[in-house]
Amino acid sequence: MSVASAGEFGLIARVTARLAGAPTTLLGPGDDAALVAAPDGRVVACTDVLVEGRHFRRDWSSAVEVGHRAAAANLADVAAMGGVATALLVGLCTPPDLDVRWAEELADGLAAECELVGAAVVGGDISASPVLTIAVTALGDLGGRPPVRRDGACPGDLVALAGRIGYAAAGCTVLSRGFRSPKALVEAYRRPQVPYWAGPAAAALGATSMIDVSDGLLQDLGHVSRASGVAIDVKRDAFEVPAAMRDAASALGVDPYTWVLAGGDDHPLVATFPPGTPLDEDWLVIGAVREGEGVTVNGRAFLDAPLGWDHFR
Amino acid sequence: MSVASAGEFGLIARVTARLAGAPTTLLGPGDDAALVAAPDGRVVACTDVLVEGRHFRRDWSSAVEVGHRAAAANLADVAAMGGVATALLVGLCTPPDLDVRWAEELADGLAAECELVGAAVVGGDISASPVLTIAVTALGDLGGRPPVRRDGACPGDLVALAGRIGYAAAGCTVLSRGFRSPKALVEAYRRPQVPYWAGPAAAALGATSMIDVSDGLLQDLGHVSRASGVAIDVKRDAFEVPAAMRDAASALGVDPYTWVLAGGDDHPLVATFPPGTPLDEDWLVIGAVREGEGVTVNGRAFLDAPLGWDHFR
Repeated sequence: MSVASAGEFGLIARVTARLAGAPTTLLGPGDDAALVAAPDGRVVACTDVLVEGRHFRRDWSSAVEVGHRAAAANLADVAAMGGVATALLVGLCTPPDLDVRWAEELADGLAAECELVGAAVVGGDISASPVLTIAVTALGDLGGRPPVRRDGACPGDLVALAGRIGYAAAGCTVLSRGFRSPKALVEAYRRPQVPYWAGPAAAALGATSMIDVSDGLLQDLGHVSRASGVAIDVKRDAFEVPAAMRDAASALGVDPYTWVLAGGDDHPLVATFPPGTPLDEDWLVIGAVREGEGVTVNGRAFLDAPLGWDHFR
Repeated sequence: MSVASAGEFGLIARVTARLAGAPTTLLGPGDDAALVAAPDGRVVACTDVLVEGRHFRRDWSSAVEVGHRAAAANLADVAAMGGVATALLVGLCTPPDLDVRWAEELADGLAAECELVGAAVVGGDISASPVLTIAVTALGDLGGRPPVRRDGACPGDLVALAGRIGYAAAGCTVLSRGFRSPKALVEAYRRPQVPYWAGPAAAALGATSMIDVSDGLLQDLGHVSRASGVAIDVKRDAFEVPAAMRDAASALGVDPYTWVLAGGDDHPLVATFPPGTPLDEDWLVIGAVREGEGVTVNGRAFLDAPLGWDHFR
């Protein structure tokens, strides 16, 4: 059945029937607005839009996987402030001939990714549109801590990364060349493994700045560099390129470091810490903050590829 | 200059430069997420999407006016819970050839409508898309009051309306027939005058249920009727059809009550109150809650037109 034959309110009923609340959900879908607990008297909030053909393709990802990715992109932003996500709101613009099951499975993916952090889908809106578009807003709580911003990095700080990097970009390249394997890379693109825990952990460790890598490590570190008025140097040898990625890069004629340094979609968190901060093995030290400006790799500009995504290019 | 030549980050810089914060804005645009005060430890949240050709037309409304309408649709939902809006997040999907000025003026309209309630645009996202789409999320605060839901209407309650009704629908019909006047109606469509004050006021008066009329009075009262398990009867004579609307209806061959009873976009608030609630002249009593089910006009089904909008029809 198409979403048009289900009708706006039929579709809403089918989708919301698949959603469960979280302890922070004081009032879920079905009213003019939702009500969500904001325990520390402040709420973290961010929005990301995903447009078919630009952020996802239905022949590359299942509806469940698109739901995971759409949720992850937003939940990672909450983590990157040092917060724990509480709720998601979803605006779905859909062609009238979309199968209702696709919308239902999208909701399943969104809800499942939310469950990883104890959040829930609490509301949304549905409209017809010629272009399948998913607009997600995430809310979160800082647990009384100050937000970890982009503008606090200091010369001398360590730069450290939590989570996988380059996998999703590699998987995206693999898919774009018409292949379906290596599976580890394709799966990484389809369902990112975001280190949500690392956001509040970094805040507790005294991180001076933090950002989630969604558009490419060097580009996103560029935001930190500009906001903080510092230079950041990344050590290329800090990254171990796994065998699957090395083999795929070789087969496709790509430098795997373009995936690691300029690829998006894995949503690892990168943070700066005062020197001497005791970081356990979950954090990979990848560089250092210096006086000056700009982001370099081993002290030099990285010219092998664009630094990351511009969503109009 | 097109948004594509400005680039994603250039466009973001231009748009955010036009935005001011509100007292509740603890951290505005420019980081992974915004931070907004949630004084009572809870946050009201809702999302509405507007798709070009379906919710707005660039030849019918200026960018500033589209901004006002997009903000109003969401801010009204916060008011309908009894809340005061604090913040807006905006996801903009835009064709690459859109003039940067259009996006800037959209931001001006969004910001100006926010200012009416003391809220601010605190964040968002921008992406290219073949279809101009605006996804807005509003946040708000209940000031310690319980939310006014749709499911609390009781037999015997009064049904009362705050704000104009039918004007915007009339203006939309006027524009759809190729006319540009009467100006009062066209302006009502282009820039709704939402009675935001009435939301918290109704909550303070003990409203048992409330909804904002965005899809048509009878359809939206239908949501209240179903959620509350009651019947609602509306008195046709309660509404005074103003001269401009009567004249336009006559010229266009339309029953003006289809605008009043089934038209959307004005975003008045309709609430139910226990009998005897002292309502001042800002509230128009338009009917009563009975035992039973369904929404009637003068005790009979309203068959002159669809009850309101289905966004897939």
